[in-house]
Formats: sequence, C-alpha cells, structure tokens
Amino acid sequence: MSILGFLNKRASGSVARERLQLILAHERAESGRPDLVITLREEILAVIAKHVAVERDKVKITLERGEGVSTLGVDIELPLSSANTLTAQKQKRAA
Amino acid sequence: MSILGFLNKRASGSVARERLQLILAHERAESGRPDLVITLREEILAVIAKHVAVERDKVKITLERGEGVSTLGVDIELPLSSANTLTAQKQKRAA
Repeated sequence: MSILGFLNKRASGSVARERLQLILAHERAESGRPDLVITLREEILAVIAKHVAVERDKVKITLERGEGVSTLGVDIELPLSSANTLTAQKQKRAA
Repeated sequence: MSILGFLNKRASGSVARERLQLILAHERAESGRPDLVITLREEILAVIAKHVAVERDKVKITLERGEGVSTLGVDIELPLSSANTLTAQKQKRAA
C-alpha cells in the first residue's frame, strides 16, 4: 500500500514526540462526484479533538486533488500528557 | 448460488470502482498511554457511514500495534452511486 509506505517514512524520521497522523484517500471512478475527503475533513478533526487536546498550530493539513484520487493528510503533534488527561476526564464523567 | 457468485464477480471486475482508504497512525512517546487509533476507529467509521452507504463486507480493517506506533488501516469499496445519493438526501433535508 503506497500511502502506508509514505506514512512510515515520515514517522521514522521523527524524535520522541507524540503524534497522530491520518491519510485519507478517495479514489473516484466518476468525475463530478462530491469529494469525500473534503466532506469528511472537519468531521474527522472534530472526532479527534473530542479525545485529545489539539492545538491549531500543531496541526498540519495537506490536500492533494488529482483527476481520479484526492488525498488528505493530517499530522497532529500532541502535547505529551493530552491524551491521558482527556481520557481520564471522560472516565471520571462516565463513572 | 455459485452461478450468482460468479456473475457478481464478473460484474465487479468489469466496472470501475470507487474506494475510500484511511490510514491512521499513532506514534506514542510514552508507553501505557491509551491507544488513540483504537479509540478513534469506531467513531471515524461512523462519520464515514453518515456520508456513504458502507456495506460491512466491503470494508477491510487492519490494525498493527508496534511498541511505539499503532497503525489502523481502513479500505472501503464504495457502491458507485452511494456518495451521490446520500449527499443528495442530505441536501434535500437541509433545504
């Protein structure tokens, strides 16, 4: 899978940081079809933000639109204690 | 059943296909941190299912958990008219 290779390459070069990377590719057979990666972008980012404290300047979003394939890349650098904190808060609320 | 299966195989092989691929990787700096790709999997699938008619047997999910990186892969084969139909329904409702 070529996008996985791309992802691994980027991941291996990084230092001891916490990161979340997302690649979403939409392979369209018909032109004129609504582009799913654009439709899903904000909703997926909202889902992520529910679970980790995402700072706007730590998010890199790229969008490539080819004739048959659109690819969305999201790279989020997470603060080191963010995921733990939000999960703990959720568990407290649920208890 | 076998003839029908054969027919379907031919049909799916002869037409152009529409696909949505997602790769989500979580690079953890600390061990013992909750694994975001597992937390996010169902919610992201639900977001996608809101916009396209996803058939369970057309979805391939892979999950790799390494020591520092967890990677979730989702590969969805979409029916050719699905995205258009659902988007049209949404626009109708919103109007």
